[in-house]
This record gives sequence, structure tokens and C-alpha cells, in this order.
Amino acid sequence: MEKLTVVKVGGKVVEDPASLEKLLSDFSKIEGKKILIHGGGKTASNISEKLGITPKMVDGRRITDAETLKVVVMTYAGLVNKTIVAALQALGCNATGLSGADLNCIVSTKREVKEIDYGFVGDIKKVNAALLSKLLDMNVIPVMAPITHDGKGQLLNTNADTIATRVAIAMAPFFETNLILCFEKKGVLSNNDNDDSVIPSLTHEYFEELKSKKVIKEGMIPKLDNGFAAIRQGVKKVIITNFNSLSEQNISGTELV
Amino acid sequence: MEKLTVVKVGGKVVEDPASLEKLLSDFSKIEGKKILIHGGGKTASNISEKLGITPKMVDGRRITDAETLKVVVMTYAGLVNKTIVAALQALGCNATGLSGADLNCIVSTKREVKEIDYGFVGDIKKVNAALLSKLLDMNVIPVMAPITHDGKGQLLNTNADTIATRVAIAMAPFFETNLILCFEKKGVLSNNDNDDSVIPSLTHEYFEELKSKKVIKEGMIPKLDNGFAAIRQGVKKVIITNFNSLSEQNISGTELV
Repeated sequence: MEKLTVVKVGGKVVEDPASLEKLLSDFSKIEGKKILIHGGGKTASNISEKLGITPKMVDGRRITDAETLKVVVMTYAGLVNKTIVAALQALGCNATGLSGADLNCIVSTKREVKEIDYGFVGDIKKVNAALLSKLLDMNVIPVMAPITHDGKGQLLNTNADTIATRVAIAMAPFFETNLILCFEKKGVLSNNDNDDSVIPSLTHEYFEELKSKKVIKEGMIPKLDNGFAAIRQGVKKVIITNFNSLSEQNISGTELV
Repeated sequence: MEKLTVVKVGGKVVEDPASLEKLLSDFSKIEGKKILIHGGGKTASNISEKLGITPKMVDGRRITDAETLKVVVMTYAGLVNKTIVAALQALGCNATGLSGADLNCIVSTKREVKEIDYGFVGDIKKVNAALLSKLLDMNVIPVMAPITHDGKGQLLNTNADTIATRVAIAMAPFFETNLILCFEKKGVLSNNDNDDSVIPSLTHEYFEELKSKKVIKEGMIPKLDNGFAAIRQGVKKVIITNFNSLSEQNISGTELV
């Protein structure tokens, strides 16, 4: 099977032009088929504030009311996505930006209201692997924004880690798929006070242990839950790493095993 | 040759949800291959104002400084484009949103500074007809925002009428291409005080006459220049009409001959 690398980059790297330039240059050099999924980070919050909309967060997740949805669609699928696509084109990569609505590539359902009403947030129902494969066959590089749709005209805000994971899982039957989740640290740390305490291979048992000891907490928990789900569902390799490590021949960081 | 309909809709229709819904429903029923090109209209100006950026206009054209460019990319390629794509998906049309950077589909050059510095405005150099044809062959409907790129990483603001015209011209060797430029009036008027004085067929000579008499003026001049250029360069039919006329079997309005 042909190799496919699915790379997810967080919002922070997108905000700093120098980091973004290096990241995209490294990404452009990855051999074989590839897909980039990006977050939006603070850009949306900054623009919301300027527009007089106060961003609401619960447990690190944005509450997406109708006005906030407009801002995240504008910034993630507009400004951030097109800036990345234009930069990749300049590097000779024929990228195309996609929200989940484009090509109907990610259909989601609005999250049910339980204790918290997350607003216009989508939980993924289906990834259109066939059309993504067609783009890859045309040597096109999909660049996906964390926006999906419900198929009935409603756009929905969706977590970028989850999109990356679900895209990797959906592509796994067709490609030998590696998933690389990039963030600010060098990998999953065994000691949060020591940035060099990267765990090279993390088993699910050790993850549970570190979680119970509160070494792994907050946003890392859903990230790793996603990563282990990918491994269980046919993704060949899942690596949690720093966005500076993409240039390495054998990408360092934490491999989930 | 297979038929292709290229429809351009202005910014105004995009701002009113009821008009947009009707327009997209009518568009979805057009038979054969089709491409939609949309403007952005006042959305960008409204958001600029809220962000404290005063929109600058010269002769009906926006002066695009760096901050304004961010706003037009956000609104045109983000909010407006994705709203249209999601609505078309709900109508069963497999649409995909494109700026000129996506798939490298429209390459432009930053307009030279002469009397006026238009800022980050792009004049079209090349339309990638091959990739647009591939999308059409996949039964995908391209929905194009009036944003292009220079191939060196710079996004550029580009007139939507011009994009529609150049796309129609580029597709003309491969499809029997009709170009429909929609706006608020029923067509080109012989008397601006009478909305029903639509000229059914407009020759280039009559256009020149009406221009010299100042009956045709301002924004209509570049629109018609574009339309006549399309006719000269292989586009089968060019119609200037109201966005409500798309539902008609034989679309009324002004045909350029």
C-alpha cells in the first residue's frame, strides 16, 4: 500500500509567520501522499474580541454561539486556511483547502445538549474517504480546516485533533497511514517540569497510569484518546511531537504503541 | 461538446438569506456542468468597520491594504464561500469552495501602481482549466471566491466579474460554455429610469453608443467589457440578468451578441 502522512498542527504555530513558514517547508518535504489539518487558535479569539464577541471556553473547548461560528468559519476556513494553501503553492505543493462542507468531505451532527450546551459544535459522523483519495490520486494535498457541516446547510465547529484522527482512520484501508499530531512540547512528558522527559513509546496502560497520577491531564487526554483510537482502527503509526520535528528523517516524539 | 454554465452572483444577493436560498435552489436545478462565482459585497465592509478598518473605494473598486486583504479573505473565501457550499450540499449538489490559491486554479499578478495604488489586488494571469475540468468530471461543482494568488504566497483581491469571465473563456475550448452575470436589475437598460427597458440583445456598437450617451456607466462598463471579451474568445452565450431569472427555462435579460 502507498504511504500517507496525516499531519495535524495546532493553532499556535499558525499565528507566528516564521514558525508557520518553517513548518510548511518541512511539511512540503515529507515524501508520498499527505494531508494537513490545522487548528485556528487565538486568531478567532482575537477577532471575536475586536468584533465585541467575548469568547466562551469550558474545559479548553470553545462554546460556539451563532456569532462565534461566523468568526471561526471566517478565520479557520478563510484566513488561516487560505494563507496556508497560498504558502504551500509557493513551495510547489498543489494544495487545496477544505472545510467539511467542501466535497461533502466531513459530515457531522450538532452535539446534543447535556450538562453543557456547546452550541454549533459538530461530532463527526462520516469522512468521505473516496473523494479525499481522488484528490490524493490527482497529486493534490488536502489542507483541512476544523469546520464541518451537517449536510443540511449548517456549518459546525469541530476539534482539529478529532478531524485528523478520523481522517487518518478513514484513509487507513486505502493507504499505509501515519498520523502525526504536532504541538508545542517535544512529546508526551513523564514529568511536566522537565521538557526533555519525553516518553518515546507510550502504551495504553502507561497512559492510564499517568492519567490517574494527573501527569497527563486536560487537553492531552482527548488528544491521546484520539491517538489510541487511531491505532486500534488501523492507523499504522501515531506520533505526538513538536512541530519542529517534522523535518527529521525519523520523526522523534512519543509514538503510541 | 458538453454544456457548462458559469454563473456569477454579486455580493448583494449573498447578504440576504432568503434571496440566497432562492438563488441557490435555482442554481441547483440548472442542468449539466456548472460553476458558481460569487462576490462578497458589503459583508467585508461591515466587518472591516467593526474591526476599525475604514473601507477605501476608488471608482467603485476597493483599495485593498494589508488589513483589508485579511478581511476580504476571511469573508469572501471563508464565511460567504462556506455558507454557499454548505447550502448547496443541503440541496444535493456536491460543491467545493475554491479561492485561486486552491488547486492553483487562478494565478494573478499584483496590479502595478500607476495613478492609483489599489493595494493587494490581482490581475488574472492564468486559469487552470485542466484541474477545474477534472473537478467537473467528478461531478463536483466549483464555487469560486473572488480571491486569487500570485504563486509566491501572496493572496490577492480580484473582481468577481473578471474571474467569471476568465473562467468561462478558459473553459470554452472544453465545453459549450454559457456565462450568466447576475445583478440586481433585469438586464442592461436603455433607460435607467425604467427598470423594464431591458435590451434583449446588445451589440458592441450599441454598447459603445449607450456608453457615449452615459446611459451605460460606472460598474456596468467593466462588466460589459468583460462580457464582450468572453464572446470574442469562444464563450457561446453571455447573458446579463437578474438573479431571480436563473429559474427560467430560457433565461431572460440582455444577451450580448
